[in-house]
Amino acid sequence: MARMKAAVFVDKNRIVLDEKPIPEVGPLDALVRITTTTICGTDVHILRGEYPVAKGLTVGHEPVGIIEKLGTQVQGFHEGQRVIAGAITPSGHSNACLCGCSSQDGAGTLHGFKAIGGWKFGNVIDGCQAEFVCVPDAMVNLSPIPASLTDEQVLMCPDIMSTGFSGAERGGVGIGDTVAVFALGPIGLCAVAGARMLGATTIIGVDTVAARMTVARQLGASYLVDFKQGNVVEQIMALTDGRGVDVAIEALGTQSTFEWALRVLRPGGTLSSLGVYSGDLRIPLDAFAAGLGDYRIVTTLCPGGKERMRRLMQVVASGRVDVSPLVTHRFRLEEIETAYELFANQRDGVMKVAITP
Amino acid sequence: MARMKAAVFVDKNRIVLDEKPIPEVGPLDALVRITTTTICGTDVHILRGEYPVAKGLTVGHEPVGIIEKLGTQVQGFHEGQRVIAGAITPSGHSNACLCGCSSQDGAGTLHGFKAIGGWKFGNVIDGCQAEFVCVPDAMVNLSPIPASLTDEQVLMCPDIMSTGFSGAERGGVGIGDTVAVFALGPIGLCAVAGARMLGATTIIGVDTVAARMTVARQLGASYLVDFKQGNVVEQIMALTDGRGVDVAIEALGTQSTFEWALRVLRPGGTLSSLGVYSGDLRIPLDAFAAGLGDYRIVTTLCPGGKERMRRLMQVVASGRVDVSPLVTHRFRLEEIETAYELFANQRDGVMKVAITP
Amino acid sequence: MARMKAAVFVDKNRIVLDEKPIPEVGPLDALVRITTTTICGTDVHILRGEYPVAKGLTVGHEPVGIIEKLGTQVQGFHEGQRVIAGAITPSGHSNACLCGCSSQDGAGTLHGFKAIGGWKFGNVIDGCQAEFVCVPDAMVNLSPIPASLTDEQVLMCPDIMSTGFSGAERGGVGIGDTVAVFALGPIGLCAVAGARMLGATTIIGVDTVAARMTVARQLGASYLVDFKQGNVVEQIMALTDGRGVDVAIEALGTQSTFEWALRVLRPGGTLSSLGVYSGDLRIPLDAFAAGLGDYRIVTTLCPGGKERMRRLMQVVASGRVDVSPLVTHRFRLEEIETAYELFANQRDGVMKVAITP
Amino acid sequence: MARMKAAVFVDKNRIVLDEKPIPEVGPLDALVRITTTTICGTDVHILRGEYPVAKGLTVGHEPVGIIEKLGTQVQGFHEGQRVIAGAITPSGHSNACLCGCSSQDGAGTLHGFKAIGGWKFGNVIDGCQAEFVCVPDAMVNLSPIPASLTDEQVLMCPDIMSTGFSGAERGGVGIGDTVAVFALGPIGLCAVAGARMLGATTIIGVDTVAARMTVARQLGASYLVDFKQGNVVEQIMALTDGRGVDVAIEALGTQSTFEWALRVLRPGGTLSSLGVYSGDLRIPLDAFAAGLGDYRIVTTLCPGGKERMRRLMQVVASGRVDVSPLVTHRFRLEEIETAYELFANQRDGVMKVAITP
Repeated sequence: MARMKAAVFVDKNRIVLDEKPIPEVGPLDALVRITTTTICGTDVHILRGEYPVAKGLTVGHEPVGIIEKLGTQVQGFHEGQRVIAGAITPSGHSNACLCGCSSQDGAGTLHGFKAIGGWKFGNVIDGCQAEFVCVPDAMVNLSPIPASLTDEQVLMCPDIMSTGFSGAERGGVGIGDTVAVFALGPIGLCAVAGARMLGATTIIGVDTVAARMTVARQLGASYLVDFKQGNVVEQIMALTDGRGVDVAIEALGTQSTFEWALRVLRPGGTLSSLGVYSGDLRIPLDAFAAGLGDYRIVTTLCPGGKERMRRLMQVVASGRVDVSPLVTHRFRLEEIETAYELFANQRDGVMKVAITP
Repeated sequence: MARMKAAVFVDKNRIVLDEKPIPEVGPLDALVRITTTTICGTDVHILRGEYPVAKGLTVGHEPVGIIEKLGTQVQGFHEGQRVIAGAITPSGHSNACLCGCSSQDGAGTLHGFKAIGGWKFGNVIDGCQAEFVCVPDAMVNLSPIPASLTDEQVLMCPDIMSTGFSGAERGGVGIGDTVAVFALGPIGLCAVAGARMLGATTIIGVDTVAARMTVARQLGASYLVDFKQGNVVEQIMALTDGRGVDVAIEALGTQSTFEWALRVLRPGGTLSSLGVYSGDLRIPLDAFAAGLGDYRIVTTLCPGGKERMRRLMQVVASGRVDVSPLVTHRFRLEEIETAYELFANQRDGVMKVAITP
Repeated sequence: MARMKAAVFVDKNRIVLDEKPIPEVGPLDALVRITTTTICGTDVHILRGEYPVAKGLTVGHEPVGIIEKLGTQVQGFHEGQRVIAGAITPSGHSNACLCGCSSQDGAGTLHGFKAIGGWKFGNVIDGCQAEFVCVPDAMVNLSPIPASLTDEQVLMCPDIMSTGFSGAERGGVGIGDTVAVFALGPIGLCAVAGARMLGATTIIGVDTVAARMTVARQLGASYLVDFKQGNVVEQIMALTDGRGVDVAIEALGTQSTFEWALRVLRPGGTLSSLGVYSGDLRIPLDAFAAGLGDYRIVTTLCPGGKERMRRLMQVVASGRVDVSPLVTHRFRLEEIETAYELFANQRDGVMKVAITP
Repeated sequence: MARMKAAVFVDKNRIVLDEKPIPEVGPLDALVRITTTTICGTDVHILRGEYPVAKGLTVGHEPVGIIEKLGTQVQGFHEGQRVIAGAITPSGHSNACLCGCSSQDGAGTLHGFKAIGGWKFGNVIDGCQAEFVCVPDAMVNLSPIPASLTDEQVLMCPDIMSTGFSGAERGGVGIGDTVAVFALGPIGLCAVAGARMLGATTIIGVDTVAARMTVARQLGASYLVDFKQGNVVEQIMALTDGRGVDVAIEALGTQSTFEWALRVLRPGGTLSSLGVYSGDLRIPLDAFAAGLGDYRIVTTLCPGGKERMRRLMQVVASGRVDVSPLVTHRFRLEEIETAYELFANQRDGVMKVAITP
């Protein structure tokens, strides 16, 4: 059986490059030869043992590649086609999928809903930091890459853009809105771009790293607030003449950012949460107007599926959003352990790395 | 100057019947002679000093009456007309009103939004537990009562039905949904009715008081769960075959009910919160799927305005919802101190009282 | 090869009971032994040659039955299970499916959208007026029948209830709305029930057949207008005190009903069209306020998929809507030609027939 | 009584500059001294007698100016303040206003809805092509101009941007959509900008005038189709690889543009109509998929009110949309008859004129 290189979770603090068999392709699957992939903050959680996955699992959920082999039942694609797949790979046939909630796909469950069930790559099935990945439900999940786009240009689509944009979409951003984005990592930066895509006219980015703030401004931020330079809430209320923001996007996953987001909302505003939290959250009574402020708190897991990917690649192809500044470092798959070391420790101004087998 | 009787907040634990001048009527106001009103749970918070209002304020925000006098600029109504006004009385001209968020009306503020700003009666202006009340922005807020309906039949419209129904509406209840309602006081009971009005096919009511559970069943509850008889979350998961509910409506304002509501949601479900909380809330990490469950938490302050009131009275007139079992006790305005004593202590199976000057 | 009886379109005005091979079952399909099915108005269009299908095709798109055999890739179901499938059988993997428009499924097309592409049974593949039907994309489309429900109780779910209810859903019916339904055939009757399910408080049914009007009243109509007894528009404007209706549901497919629906709308109202038209439509300038009335015209093709079917069966199981009066006649499959003759000519007060192989 | 100059409709084909009394200011009104205004295509319909208004009425509905005098009940504004008001001036207190449909304001009617009832300036009350205009319901309608913006920069907000953007908003344009805009007059050009503001990635403009197509490209059009150069529908289908568009915006008001818009829609797409039609419309059966295509046709009358104006001015202030190329000619109020002559005959490449008293 042919073998391939793959980044494998071995144990806490150990993701190593190993050899594994090239995956078998079931009737509905596609085998994709990875040409470019990347490392996500969630992978770092896995590395550190903060998010549990099975030992021996191949990690990674952001695949760009070429179809190597199609399952017997897969139609509408051909081998040799350049494709991406979303980080979230819904089945298309669960009850969750059929009522517009496909990230919570629970295809194998009695009722078709399972929390975080749509996230499979590098979570419950082998992921794509490898030479090959097996994409489940290929007809739902493979999306052809427009010929005009490079791998790196679409590398942010599977997760970073999809998640970041969804923060603005689920927050209901509209024309003339004021939006604040808390934390300007790759997802927060894409939330800035997404808020701009949906018509926000004032976008306030909150972070402290200068390089991130620079990219935020390129992507549409009107103002940048450094959370180390004075009270964040006061700064934002001043910038909005005391009005507050229509939508606050949380893009980190901490009590501080969550609470700031709530405190800067205008009455009737929406807190759109993208972060992965690691502890209980607290909603302060005053910030919540005792429950009478018509506030909404919405959370979103990265939307997947080929139509989503098609649309995000259209955004790139149209030139409306240039996410290329996000890829700051490039590595060969052979160097992935080094890449993890750099990325996990946020060294050298890294934002996203491109990994090429 | 003519005087009238009014229930006045004097100090913590003291709401007394007093004499005050009949209010002056400004150009946009209407003076309404109260024929029936009621006491709300919020009034009890005021009584106990838990919600601060000015000493000397007339309390009460659920008016049914007859137009005594119209302001000089008020058109489209006539003196002698039977009307109600919502508990929330938006101005119609704030920015909040003009973007569909009229309960957060901040007509006097720079930017037009103010948390809880639409609640004026018995909060920042004199209320309606009195012989007369002055209704601000009368053209926005007065709604004629259909001749076929009695005062008591429309007494739940200004607050109880409007709030309870909004729990289902903002929760996005649709055809075939499973909905759980936590706490079956008057608002929770109307949330049951509202969920039914919007197409829910399984409605689970949670309480422990038998009389409330009986009314819940009359209003549409399919199942009743007694929170004193075993684990609430387990009971609801069993009733839903492990699926959870599409929408969970919180109608009390405590950590327990909030947390139960969150824990019984299916992934992608909505927690619609109506309660008035008195402390910080905690969102447990697991119940929140670490932020990745596509959950939504929405809060709503009672929608007001004459169109809302017209529609709620249509619900009553159509015979689709019979809220008459909610009025369990009747008092004269002269007896209002007794009524407060009964209601605040939830004696004698009281749900709502009707007060008639 | 085993053979079965099937109603086959032979030529204009000729649908006959014939023998055909029992269908082959592909890996994603399920073979369902039909226990009950029915004839739809659309089948009559086919019979008359007004809607073209291939000669030799088995007609019918409303299956109730028992799983006889599952394709090799189908999981989550078992042979012997009682199921229905919707009239519309989306693939789950087209772009249309993935953006919430699954009735326009174009699984085999380049871009995944095809007008009316989700309607396959008795249109582009063999239908279910037969002893067996092969259900495509079985994991998307099979929905288990609750044990408490009979075949006849769920017979309206695949098309009639799904279509009728969608008229109210897509029309945006809400609490306190006034709704008019034009034509009270089975779909119009279910539109009445759907409007009621979503909170309409005044429902006006328009027809002229007494038996249909009686059922309309049972299903929730407040008023009934006989279009042969005076001007329909004037009658409805009188019933609404000159206000017009919030939502008008067209359930026949003619210029008259379409135009009445438009003329009774309040400014800003919605015309929700369910009918299958057979000629161009005309929008009168005055009825359309020259394009400035904030009117919406929405059309809907019967939503399908197992989650939709599950929800509709919940509606029946909850006892909220009793569609049993719609089945007025019963036939054996052997008698289907007689059934067509009766149904196509609307004889003997027929509304829907139940056909049992 | 002080007098002022005003453009008055005298008779068909005669709008002349006349002298009239400066308007009286009622308690809820504001008198605004016009500093800049413009002529709209609708004014040309009035000029030609195609849209009836009373003889002697001052025309014009796009005011930019300075508050000269406030009514006695108007709060939150001060004399000397620079303001605009929308072309549509809702009352804030009609039932239409209170259910999110304020352009159909019928403040004086029994039920609060009246087709086109929100359009008052130059329609049913004196308009703003004059030295002064009286703005009704000033607290609802006056919106302060940010100090950084010139009169001309905000001149498109009252009607052109509000209408054009609403075409995209009501059409439901989202990220990655393909949108076609039919006719690139000022409103069509703003529809292009609005589609871009909401995330469209492919925008196809249809016209034949080179100058308009140039501005369309500046505002975001990806492709331009000349309707005189071959079949429009075929060109658009080719540009979209046969897929069709998600949203088609009609911005002229003719059968041709309406029908093209319908024919290029993908199944499930939305035709968003902004045009003012002058005759019945025809919906071809095939383009409509016989009613089964899940198509939506939505119409919109220019949204008004101060919050809408605030947001549109934010769009300008943010630099996201530069509508300055739309103002091609400038006149003194004294020259307004010349301006009408130029504008009505579309001479000299005119798009919009700025008129300064």
